[in-house]
Amino acid sequence: MRTPVFDLLDQLVDSCQDNRDGQVAQYIPELADADPEKLALALCTPDGRVYTSGDAEHEFTMQSISKPFTYALALRDRGLDRVLQSVDVEPSGNAFNEISLDSRGRAKNPMINIGAITTYALAGDDDMTAGDRLEHVLDGLSQFAGRELSVAEDVYQSELSTGWRNLALAALMKGNDLLVGEPQDAMHGYTRACAINVDARDVAVMGMTLATGGVNPLTKKRVIPQWVARQVLSVMTTCGMYDSAGDWLSRVGIPAKSGVSGGVLGALPGQVGIGAFSPRLDRFGNSVRGVKIYERLSHQLGLHIMNTPAPSIEAVGQRSHTSDGYRLIDLQGRLTFATAEMALRHFQAIPPGRDDVVVDFSLVPAIPRVGAIMILEGLRRLRADGHAVILVDPHGRVEQHEEADETIATRIVDALDDV
Amino acid sequence: MRTPVFDLLDQLVDSCQDNRDGQVAQYIPELADADPEKLALALCTPDGRVYTSGDAEHEFTMQSISKPFTYALALRDRGLDRVLQSVDVEPSGNAFNEISLDSRGRAKNPMINIGAITTYALAGDDDMTAGDRLEHVLDGLSQFAGRELSVAEDVYQSELSTGWRNLALAALMKGNDLLVGEPQDAMHGYTRACAINVDARDVAVMGMTLATGGVNPLTKKRVIPQWVARQVLSVMTTCGMYDSAGDWLSRVGIPAKSGVSGGVLGALPGQVGIGAFSPRLDRFGNSVRGVKIYERLSHQLGLHIMNTPAPSIEAVGQRSHTSDGYRLIDLQGRLTFATAEMALRHFQAIPPGRDDVVVDFSLVPAIPRVGAIMILEGLRRLRADGHAVILVDPHGRVEQHEEADETIATRIVDALDDV
Amino acid sequence: MRTPVFDLLDQLVDSCQDNRDGQVAQYIPELADADPEKLALALCTPDGRVYTSGDAEHEFTMQSISKPFTYALALRDRGLDRVLQSVDVEPSGNAFNEISLDSRGRAKNPMINIGAITTYALAGDDDMTAGDRLEHVLDGLSQFAGRELSVAEDVYQSELSTGWRNLALAALMKGNDLLVGEPQDAMHGYTRACAINVDARDVAVMGMTLATGGVNPLTKKRVIPQWVARQVLSVMTTCGMYDSAGDWLSRVGIPAKSGVSGGVLGALPGQVGIGAFSPRLDRFGNSVRGVKIYERLSHQLGLHIMNTPAPSIEAVGQRSHTSDGYRLIDLQGRLTFATAEMALRHFQAIPPGRDDVVVDFSLVPAIPRVGAIMILEGLRRLRADGHAVILVDPHGRVEQHEEADETIATRIVDALDDV
Amino acid sequence: MRTPVFDLLDQLVDSCQDNRDGQVAQYIPELADADPEKLALALCTPDGRVYTSGDAEHEFTMQSISKPFTYALALRDRGLDRVLQSVDVEPSGNAFNEISLDSRGRAKNPMINIGAITTYALAGDDDMTAGDRLEHVLDGLSQFAGRELSVAEDVYQSELSTGWRNLALAALMKGNDLLVGEPQDAMHGYTRACAINVDARDVAVMGMTLATGGVNPLTKKRVIPQWVARQVLSVMTTCGMYDSAGDWLSRVGIPAKSGVSGGVLGALPGQVGIGAFSPRLDRFGNSVRGVKIYERLSHQLGLHIMNTPAPSIEAVGQRSHTSDGYRLIDLQGRLTFATAEMALRHFQAIPPGRDDVVVDFSLVPAIPRVGAIMILEGLRRLRADGHAVILVDPHGRVEQHEEADETIATRIVDALDDV
Repeated sequence: MRTPVFDLLDQLVDSCQDNRDGQVAQYIPELADADPEKLALALCTPDGRVYTSGDAEHEFTMQSISKPFTYALALRDRGLDRVLQSVDVEPSGNAFNEISLDSRGRAKNPMINIGAITTYALAGDDDMTAGDRLEHVLDGLSQFAGRELSVAEDVYQSELSTGWRNLALAALMKGNDLLVGEPQDAMHGYTRACAINVDARDVAVMGMTLATGGVNPLTKKRVIPQWVARQVLSVMTTCGMYDSAGDWLSRVGIPAKSGVSGGVLGALPGQVGIGAFSPRLDRFGNSVRGVKIYERLSHQLGLHIMNTPAPSIEAVGQRSHTSDGYRLIDLQGRLTFATAEMALRHFQAIPPGRDDVVVDFSLVPAIPRVGAIMILEGLRRLRADGHAVILVDPHGRVEQHEEADETIATRIVDALDDV
Repeated sequence: MRTPVFDLLDQLVDSCQDNRDGQVAQYIPELADADPEKLALALCTPDGRVYTSGDAEHEFTMQSISKPFTYALALRDRGLDRVLQSVDVEPSGNAFNEISLDSRGRAKNPMINIGAITTYALAGDDDMTAGDRLEHVLDGLSQFAGRELSVAEDVYQSELSTGWRNLALAALMKGNDLLVGEPQDAMHGYTRACAINVDARDVAVMGMTLATGGVNPLTKKRVIPQWVARQVLSVMTTCGMYDSAGDWLSRVGIPAKSGVSGGVLGALPGQVGIGAFSPRLDRFGNSVRGVKIYERLSHQLGLHIMNTPAPSIEAVGQRSHTSDGYRLIDLQGRLTFATAEMALRHFQAIPPGRDDVVVDFSLVPAIPRVGAIMILEGLRRLRADGHAVILVDPHGRVEQHEEADETIATRIVDALDDV
Repeated sequence: MRTPVFDLLDQLVDSCQDNRDGQVAQYIPELADADPEKLALALCTPDGRVYTSGDAEHEFTMQSISKPFTYALALRDRGLDRVLQSVDVEPSGNAFNEISLDSRGRAKNPMINIGAITTYALAGDDDMTAGDRLEHVLDGLSQFAGRELSVAEDVYQSELSTGWRNLALAALMKGNDLLVGEPQDAMHGYTRACAINVDARDVAVMGMTLATGGVNPLTKKRVIPQWVARQVLSVMTTCGMYDSAGDWLSRVGIPAKSGVSGGVLGALPGQVGIGAFSPRLDRFGNSVRGVKIYERLSHQLGLHIMNTPAPSIEAVGQRSHTSDGYRLIDLQGRLTFATAEMALRHFQAIPPGRDDVVVDFSLVPAIPRVGAIMILEGLRRLRADGHAVILVDPHGRVEQHEEADETIATRIVDALDDV
Repeated sequence: MRTPVFDLLDQLVDSCQDNRDGQVAQYIPELADADPEKLALALCTPDGRVYTSGDAEHEFTMQSISKPFTYALALRDRGLDRVLQSVDVEPSGNAFNEISLDSRGRAKNPMINIGAITTYALAGDDDMTAGDRLEHVLDGLSQFAGRELSVAEDVYQSELSTGWRNLALAALMKGNDLLVGEPQDAMHGYTRACAINVDARDVAVMGMTLATGGVNPLTKKRVIPQWVARQVLSVMTTCGMYDSAGDWLSRVGIPAKSGVSGGVLGALPGQVGIGAFSPRLDRFGNSVRGVKIYERLSHQLGLHIMNTPAPSIEAVGQRSHTSDGYRLIDLQGRLTFATAEMALRHFQAIPPGRDDVVVDFSLVPAIPRVGAIMILEGLRRLRADGHAVILVDPHGRVEQHEEADETIATRIVDALDDV
């Protein structure tokens, strides 16, 4: 059979094709010339498979879609505290090019221009020349995409010539003593990052790199630490779209960021990276058809971050049985708080004694931190009760946690047959 | 062994015990008299097990913790559109008792007083007397808690006598033609809902009722539809805590709501309901130790909504093997977009033909909507390819979806042995 | 000859007659029914002559035109400090019915509803019943008009029924602990003051009562102290018209206040009281033709408060000559700083000696405080130089100043012939 | 005798001497080094006499005191409409260096930096080089002072080095397409105008030039048209001091502007120009002792713009008598609306006939436009009634009005004796 995923995407794209509302961005000729009919959607899975529909290889400049990624680089390079000194994480309720500062003179968030210019200048370190920083950011964004990206020089030049307001924003932050380097350099570099060319496929991969917690699904290389991914996704959720935080979160519930060229980046943690593209914009500067596609992904497919049904009681995934002279606890599914807690109930049911207890992690795809803390302590207590504890852990799910040490198990094997 | 969950909670509580910052709410004697040393934490699991630590049975009035639940009742009783006519979902950036209205005269969100008073009046229907509505809301909140709640009459009376500002808020909404009934009635009813007594255990159960998508984990009764739970959780995320949306989401990442009596409600979708209590408040009116506990739940345990590690490639939970004359596809884990997509790759690998294909859902704890759409279409296509498709679905995971019809499978059985 | 003043008014009125922009206030039927074609202008002189043109005896309700006068009563009855505790004097930049509070919870100014409701409740004293206060305010406003005013009961009742917002404003001030009495009473009383009937002639007289510094030009009775008149005129200047302070002051420069029934009150200090009336309103709620008339009064006639040409050097009004054995200093014109300074130069020119110095104040229409201080000290110094100083002061201009004592003159006479 | 004006000033200065509140501006060393004990007051009369007290010849840089004058130059050079396109006239309610723009992107007013930078660039014309404009403005301000002013180069250089924020403001206006020329040039020129050296005496003369309606009292040269003076005085009234318009107008009532070096400019129309100086500033950036002096000028001397007592009825200044075969109407005092109206009553009392009517303007120091219109029309009507009308007008008060033509009088003479 042909996988229905393609059809799913095609249907989404088709259902938005006829919407001709909105208008292509006009402020520079290079954007005004965009083909308004272009429409693309790409989805990237956690293991790097990319599904596309429409004009998915049509290139466009990132514009504001670059903001989450330069923010990620700044966080990685400087740490959270330093970045928060200059740029807060609050929705501004204002347009993207507004002077949204908090009472301490910080930019309200990194998704509006004043914040993005400031975070651009925080990528890399103080010793970098302006040219070094340009290279550093272009290279960083290429790592997110998993391929070498390049700048649309004509767009860059054209935006520079209308950049008075962005220069003003940079100079304001300099006046507040919160900008690294010269205002001119930050404005130029930020404008250049906005002029990087991508296609919908790239955007989906970049989104999935955030959604995996920082590992590029194509190259398998870690681009940013997990805490950075979490921070960027959080800020995209409240500051990425529309001019209103609550509306996007409640209606769509997918962390996202739109750009004035018509792209919309999305990232649903652990699940999917999304790239959409269509140049006509609504009055907030978001792609009209791009927004529509996200609404349908959320409403029709239930891809809303709050849409997590509770695990049902009957089959949470762990089973305990005694056979072949040992007690087998057969875990499966992600060990979140809820599922780990259920597993511990099985541990708890084992009376103290000298039995062999086998805990099989073969079907556990991931152990979040909370589950690891709970399960590891449970294993220690089983041993303290006198049991020999044998782990079946072919993928090393248990050992990868720093809390795991020699006290947690008597023995670790790769397959149940090896017990 | 003793389950380590209790110890985990005890450690969290202990680590916050010595913090004596902040001050008990002073504006009425009944709150000012609260014992500032009280400290409680309760966690409720999806299947209704409640773990507690500290003074978990000490009662306090809900105050603003009642807001998400009256909002839920209003949404259930009136529908989203009607409620949005009067109350928006945007963070206000203002204090809880501010007059935060949007340009259309709507309350900015239901978590501030002006919005909560308005949503209170939307619970039930237009024909209710003021007394009926009081009953209706008290009964609704009791359903969330899974036990009959009651009002602290002394607190109620005392708050009424200082209620000029709330009366003003109600009259403003009336003046905007956005309030049902008389301002006086809405103010009284809202104040009464705030004076309902609960303990940390109740709060955890109420939170889990939101986190399950609307089903009370103790009574197993559905209190609100899933879309209402999603809406409430979204609004708690952006409007529930501090005076700033982005800070709470990025730092803690648990949908939450605090009350001026010292309680903090939390709900992590699909995983856990949380009730914390400690009366001393910070300058925003949030419980100091309550906030600390949430920060530790997030940072130390990784209970952050953006903290969803991607499923690893090696063991996503479905396996395909041929044995006993049929091809077996053995699914497990929640069928999200990412995992359903992987399952479809297995379907795709089966060449057209007349084989029996057995798909086993025994270990699938839940199928979100996106997974259902994808898998059901995959099953249809396998049949269209000529295969007999047999589902093992003892918990009825497949049939419960409305897209499921007779075309999806040749036969559905309860156990693999029945194939 | 017929005085051209009537023609001047007729021309002003005629030039605005054809303007049919704007719309009659619609929110209650009693206002909506106003005849939109009505147009009136009245000017009152300092000595109480009233010139009118158009429908100057057509009655309408004062609405917001009552605000400066209840403010005046509150200032008179409570003093400046007490009133400033509750109501500031800053332009709000907002619409008349907005909740414009400063950081201390005070109403921004007494010309918007929230401030006017609060100042209403400050008129009189704390011991008054609500009924007493109604009487007190009606009586006070009647003193400004110089005749007994009465309330349009149908307008009052109709406004009450749509008064939710005003009730809210009163309750807010009560919640801020800045309202005297019950919110309900303040709202009722304020609404009643707004429903007092006047005609353009009354408004002109009321304006002149402010412009004289507090003395009614018809009854010659002092209604308010001079400092109150100054305060009210100042606040009318920055807060009375449009939603913007600077625009009205720079373009028109006449302290004014408009009402939603179509009246516009004006008061140019020392010169003229103005009443205009025409029911069609602009989007700010000001009478369209009323505003036009004021603009023409300012632009065509130069009635702008900043339009004060300097006294010319050649004829400032005092003359010094020696005749009949005494030196005569013949003052005339108002003794402002500038003219008093010039007078003192004449004093200065008199060498010490035993001459009789006669200073004639017959033609001095008024001596402002600054002039009095300067001239009185000059007189004392002339006596100290040895001169006999004789004042001709038939109107008692000199003696009325508190700084005047027996040291200022050897003798005071009523006419030069009496010297 | 010695004129008491000096003593008056000395008392004012003495009474403020001991106030040591506030702090000298710190942001550049050149200002921080100012002697905090310096204190000066200067008053200039309409005919150019300057009274001083304290350190009146101590020089300081104008800083924001330059703003009203560059605004005046821009108005004169470009006209009101062009200037209003870029800079509005509303109080901002914000600090002097805030980004206060209205909804159309205009600067809120010319007394805050963003507006002053923009008005600086409007002085002169589009063809000027940056250097020309510097000269033009320096020359214009010198005309206000009546002497050649020069720039404190060290202050200028020091301010430039901290000028990021001002550069940002200029770039913002450029981005809004509302700035003439390059942002850098506007910022430099504005900073240079702020660094012009003056003393308190200069400031008083500059203020009097505004207060006369545009004629320098020393040089007698017209620097700006009357409408410009009126506009500047209006804007100083609402935007010149504190951060609040209403407070300054109601408490002090003298159009004023303060500078961060400690100067305070004042101008009471038709009466007096004021220069005060004392370097310690309050938290709004106004000179503490400077403000005190203004408050005392207003409260103790009654120099408040709303403090205009009405002319009394008994001696408004015109007298009508019949003698020597002609009727004599003997006018005196400024012919405002109120006094002209009284004059017209005398005209009105003359029955039609062939009498000679003599109207004596010898003692009329000024005829504002409104008075001219009224009196001229009255004269025409007397002639139309059949009278021969002879004007005694030695100072040409009547002829200077454009409405005056050959129809107004039969004959005009220089002295009553010439009749």
